[in-house]
Amino acid sequence: MEAVAIVTILALAQFVFFSIQVGSMRGKHEIKAPATSGHPEFERMFRIQQNTMEQLVVFIPALWMFAYFVNPLWGAGLGVVFIVGRFIYRSSYLKDPASRGSGFTITFLPTAVMLVWTLVLTASSFF
Amino acid sequence: MEAVAIVTILALAQFVFFSIQVGSMRGKHEIKAPATSGHPEFERMFRIQQNTMEQLVVFIPALWMFAYFVNPLWGAGLGVVFIVGRFIYRSSYLKDPASRGSGFTITFLPTAVMLVWTLVLTASSFF
Amino acid sequence: MEAVAIVTILALAQFVFFSIQVGSMRGKHEIKAPATSGHPEFERMFRIQQNTMEQLVVFIPALWMFAYFVNPLWGAGLGVVFIVGRFIYRSSYLKDPASRGSGFTITFLPTAVMLVWTLVLTASSFF
Repeated sequence: MEAVAIVTILALAQFVFFSIQVGSMRGKHEIKAPATSGHPEFERMFRIQQNTMEQLVVFIPALWMFAYFVNPLWGAGLGVVFIVGRFIYRSSYLKDPASRGSGFTITFLPTAVMLVWTLVLTASSFF
Repeated sequence: MEAVAIVTILALAQFVFFSIQVGSMRGKHEIKAPATSGHPEFERMFRIQQNTMEQLVVFIPALWMFAYFVNPLWGAGLGVVFIVGRFIYRSSYLKDPASRGSGFTITFLPTAVMLVWTLVLTASSFF
Repeated sequence: MEAVAIVTILALAQFVFFSIQVGSMRGKHEIKAPATSGHPEFERMFRIQQNTMEQLVVFIPALWMFAYFVNPLWGAGLGVVFIVGRFIYRSSYLKDPASRGSGFTITFLPTAVMLVWTLVLTASSFF
């Protein structure tokens, strides 16, 4: 489970990094809290961070259930794909929000695979 | 714990389904990212999805602590109530946001029961 | 692990309390759902609640990994610091959003300590 913990910490650190960038764009574009709009670049980074949180809420339980019921090392590997996908999502969204699709898909696919796989395995234990 | 995993996956799948609906309402009402407003129907679905995320952040830890310290099967049963309540919340919110109260209560009650029950049991272990 | 569960429940209860306050400010300032703006006091409380959710998404996995791989009682102690920091964050943000820094730091430090410590310990298991 150590590999799963490491990947979880890296994914959380990535989210903290995105949050720090939201904060520094507040400074750069002089957008004072509690405002969450006012400049396109800030709004993009804010939505990147918010969408990453939405993904983490699903990814982290999916990862740990997959690690427990299926395989921790495969879970860690799929988690690395998630992190890479999020960096692609971030850079493409910042350039042009309309191009965020592929980064989004690379992030979401590992989570979907882990959820379906764990569901099949746990559900089959009742038959 | 298999039943708890299945209910967790179904609750996460419900949230993913709500997120997909937010995305399709972006298309329907031509609301381009990073905007999060522009049409009442989009804004309602967006708030349904956001509120569901807020609930999941509390529900998932509550469910697994309850399953571990109290009873996994009762936890799974309360989790089903959560999911049903969220569907009621979604359909009533989409019709009229002012009518979202009962769906909200049906979702929140199982979480509250699990949190209080687990708190009483774990706290009593110190006496 | 009982102490970790108690601290987790208290942190989740604090977030539920903040969410209830967002709801009552909706009533006070007559801000009807799905709107999330319209009065400075509501917007502050809304951002306090949203930021607390962002913190919980990182804090709860950090706390349980730290409890499992390092030490549950130290984890519970650091969790108490998190909760105290969030109350300071809330009251300073409501008075003046620009003064939210120290409450933010008190909340975030325990999470950062737990993440780094757990990362070092789990990573060193591979050498």
